[in-house]
Amino acid sequence: MYKQKAFWKNINLEGGEEYGEDSNLIDEVFSRTGAYIMGKRMFEEGEVNWPEDLYKADVFVLTHEKRIPWVQRGITVFYFTDEKIEAVLEKAKESAKGKDIRIQGGANTIQQFLNAGLIDEFTIHIVPIILGSGIRLLDNIDRNKYEIEISEVIPSTLTTHLKYKLTRK
Amino acid sequence: MYKQKAFWKNINLEGGEEYGEDSNLIDEVFSRTGAYIMGKRMFEEGEVNWPEDLYKADVFVLTHEKRIPWVQRGITVFYFTDEKIEAVLEKAKESAKGKDIRIQGGANTIQQFLNAGLIDEFTIHIVPIILGSGIRLLDNIDRNKYEIEISEVIPSTLTTHLKYKLTRK
Repeated sequence: MYKQKAFWKNINLEGGEEYGEDSNLIDEVFSRTGAYIMGKRMFEEGEVNWPEDLYKADVFVLTHEKRIPWVQRGITVFYFTDEKIEAVLEKAKESAKGKDIRIQGGANTIQQFLNAGLIDEFTIHIVPIILGSGIRLLDNIDRNKYEIEISEVIPSTLTTHLKYKLTRK
Repeated sequence: MYKQKAFWKNINLEGGEEYGEDSNLIDEVFSRTGAYIMGKRMFEEGEVNWPEDLYKADVFVLTHEKRIPWVQRGITVFYFTDEKIEAVLEKAKESAKGKDIRIQGGANTIQQFLNAGLIDEFTIHIVPIILGSGIRLLDNIDRNKYEIEISEVIPSTLTTHLKYKLTRK
């Protein structure tokens, strides 16, 4: 990601070397997304590292911690909630005004939304690195929830981007 | 696989509906491979299901079971061996006469060859189905053994075929 000009452009900084398929995809994700949902673990890892106003939208963080919304310089606001995922999704929809809701991660949050049958499109980016540890993305998934079709494959020299269309059975 | 004309052609039967990217790849794998290596579990699952002379080459089966070679009608011969994988690879190389050696599977056999640093190319076929159980392909892999580069991505409506070039560090 750090090699991609689109990433740096979206955080209003100069940087990056490349503007190919990967950058196009980064641009597309930012532009079609109206609200984000993420888990507490992902937020906590990012909180100390992300530049301010990275998301440029409302971000709903699933956590039991009580915390007032974090209004950043720019237009990004982080909301902290321990409501059910269906209720959080409704709030994200209102905020997104017709644009996409993106379940940003991590794995546990993605699994909850998948298993609740709430996902229409699933994007995975496969990078040729063996991690050897970590939380598995495709653990604990209800195998009978969806019909899955390949909708797009975007190759690049660094990453393979796979998009799937999910239809609830 | 059963939808692909190339699969049925290679077992000398009529069948299949499609002859696209997936069939081309099946043809390519059969034609470039001079010998196969597989684990005992894969062999035992296949033994009762594969048509005779599917592989049209020598197949080396890693097993502690003592068994005389199984010479099939045609040119396929299964050899059963409990030698070290390096020794089995040498025998497969002699048999392959300059063509590729394919580590056919299953996961445990693939992991042994990967961790021994013996793999030059890694192909994975991603089908959009949640299995929910089974032996994980990418478990127990030494994360520091190889530099991995994407060498080819072959999309199709049914499967995404990813080829990687592995260079031992």
